[in-house]
Amino acid sequence: MRTQVVIIGSGPSGLLLGQLLAKAGIEAVILDRVGKDYILGRVRAGVLEQGTVGLMDEARAGKRMHAEGLPHEGFSLAFDGRDHRIDLKDLTGGKGVMVYGQTELTRDLMAQRETIGAMTVYDASNVRLHGYEGRSPYVTYEREGITHRIDCDFIAGCDGFHGASRKSVPEKAIRTFEKVYPFGWLGILADVPPVSHELIYANHPRGFALCSMRSETRSRYYLQCTLDEKIEDWSDDRFWDELRRRLPAHHAEALVTGASFEKSIAPLRSFVAEPMRFGNLFLVGDAAHIVPPTGAKGLNLAASDVHYLYAGLTEYYQDHSTAGIDAYSTRALSRVWKAVRFSWWMTTMMHRFPDTGAFDQKIQEAELDYLTHSRAAATALAENYVGLPY
Amino acid sequence: MRTQVVIIGSGPSGLLLGQLLAKAGIEAVILDRVGKDYILGRVRAGVLEQGTVGLMDEARAGKRMHAEGLPHEGFSLAFDGRDHRIDLKDLTGGKGVMVYGQTELTRDLMAQRETIGAMTVYDASNVRLHGYEGRSPYVTYEREGITHRIDCDFIAGCDGFHGASRKSVPEKAIRTFEKVYPFGWLGILADVPPVSHELIYANHPRGFALCSMRSETRSRYYLQCTLDEKIEDWSDDRFWDELRRRLPAHHAEALVTGASFEKSIAPLRSFVAEPMRFGNLFLVGDAAHIVPPTGAKGLNLAASDVHYLYAGLTEYYQDHSTAGIDAYSTRALSRVWKAVRFSWWMTTMMHRFPDTGAFDQKIQEAELDYLTHSRAAATALAENYVGLPY
Repeated sequence: MRTQVVIIGSGPSGLLLGQLLAKAGIEAVILDRVGKDYILGRVRAGVLEQGTVGLMDEARAGKRMHAEGLPHEGFSLAFDGRDHRIDLKDLTGGKGVMVYGQTELTRDLMAQRETIGAMTVYDASNVRLHGYEGRSPYVTYEREGITHRIDCDFIAGCDGFHGASRKSVPEKAIRTFEKVYPFGWLGILADVPPVSHELIYANHPRGFALCSMRSETRSRYYLQCTLDEKIEDWSDDRFWDELRRRLPAHHAEALVTGASFEKSIAPLRSFVAEPMRFGNLFLVGDAAHIVPPTGAKGLNLAASDVHYLYAGLTEYYQDHSTAGIDAYSTRALSRVWKAVRFSWWMTTMMHRFPDTGAFDQKIQEAELDYLTHSRAAATALAENYVGLPY
Repeated sequence: MRTQVVIIGSGPSGLLLGQLLAKAGIEAVILDRVGKDYILGRVRAGVLEQGTVGLMDEARAGKRMHAEGLPHEGFSLAFDGRDHRIDLKDLTGGKGVMVYGQTELTRDLMAQRETIGAMTVYDASNVRLHGYEGRSPYVTYEREGITHRIDCDFIAGCDGFHGASRKSVPEKAIRTFEKVYPFGWLGILADVPPVSHELIYANHPRGFALCSMRSETRSRYYLQCTLDEKIEDWSDDRFWDELRRRLPAHHAEALVTGASFEKSIAPLRSFVAEPMRFGNLFLVGDAAHIVPPTGAKGLNLAASDVHYLYAGLTEYYQDHSTAGIDAYSTRALSRVWKAVRFSWWMTTMMHRFPDTGAFDQKIQEAELDYLTHSRAAATALAENYVGLPY
């Protein structure tokens, strides 16, 4: 068979790209090596920048997000026994973020894709990318023992860090930049009301903590932990005790605890692959770059890649110009590096590193104190948090 | 003999404090372990914040500074082959800095002190501080074999990192924070016109470089170097060649070279001692804290300490209130830590560390690129560079 664009990966970026292309009258087939239930079973954070919210609306998949998502106009930085609110709305001239789980966003995009009747192939194994260096790219995959081939104009690699897309590129054609952080995040989900109606990012000599939420009755909490930590060593009681220790007293006292129903440890990594285009293959989102979760940029960065690629492909099909796709890698990477820097900075400022000494702890507190006293510094934080312009 | 305040150290902070106290009718004697010529032989940078300029005026020692100093309204950040001007005046609502050598400032203050006939004891050896925990502090010293004693109300320790003041405090009463950077600055002075009329701070994969000046005909250039570098290995030619490599092409081409008449290597260190008051002893400037020269905060931080101590002592003698001297350590340290953070941040962003990898180099360039595109981030840099408010 033949289509215009093959999208590898049915996560948020692939689905969002597919919906936007469909809207522009561009046909795309989505392939995923796993099934729908597996994809919807992944628990991921969800703090959406206004640009991401806008793209969801443009993809006509924003209805439930607006009904059930929690618009946030600020968040707190806790340190040195106190906390300080970053007033996003005031600092950015009216902008904010939307707290809405990535799984829900994926579900909405999948439903919308089903509504328009576009083709998605789940459980496609042994996906291989061919001929994208030339004019006739195609993708092969196996399903129920049969090998299929889809010819296309372009391939969009939306299949994440471990996916086939980036791995299909010869090593010498790609330059990678990486930083692995010497700690992880131990996260739990529990059906208890969040300690605060806004997020709290806490710097503490015992390590970082984050108070987040999925809804007004479901909380998501994280603790910085070592990489060799075992989940089974962390009873709910131990988790809550440690969380209380890392929060300012008034939050620790207000914390409502309860049984957790999900508990996991995630490593933290910064990774960028350059360039993001190889002939007629475009890498999008986690396939090209990973950020640590501090600052919640991962999904939003994937969305901004989608924005640039969507613009480029629309320009190609509607105006017969390659200017947009030619500029894709440069435009996307310029924004990627800014978000990678922001995530690295927030991670570095908020966490305790193995070599964090008394001087470094004071520097972190001085930086946080400065942020709370300087409108310029708070604005720089806020404008990154709500998302730099596309 | 007896006086109101004994000031240990005849550097800029001791002299400035002495002049301000004299103006307020408070008597002070300055002691220094070395002589006037030795003090005036030290070559030090001089980028003065507006607050420091204001204190020089208040001390009635600003006349020559205004005539010969160079007011600067901006500086450049060079990186990735290009450079970008930070417009201090525009970003801070009209503020700037004054380029005026520390040696000249010291000379002006000494001259002013001679004019008012206040007492300075040079070549005072074996200076010792006594009784400052109680109500009757005094200082002893030896000169030409004779031991002298000066009784006083207060002692101001303005005698630098290696001076007697901080060392006289029992170790257990003091908490220190320190970071030693794994590189130094190789600096030269040459009678050539500066490559630019404003300072250039250059980030380069080969290491940091700084183009500065003393006047329109005298340049001061620095190169980041390793700590085991030997000055005799650095001919003028080698220095100029290396400097050219680290600058954007248009600056490298415009560089005027010539014989240097001063060449030295300085280590970089961050250091803070807390608190800054011990009974009736107050530590001021380098005696309590050291910053790396990136951002030129050392002298300005000493001046802000002087400002707080002068205010406190004036309040004590004129209003019979101890509120100002009681708040001295807290007020001074709050500003100290902000400047220590700023100097650490600029140093970290601009230098190549032994473990700087490809990722870190890209992060530095992304941060510099962000600074050049975000008014908020550039404002945060500018407001620190011209000096945070007292």
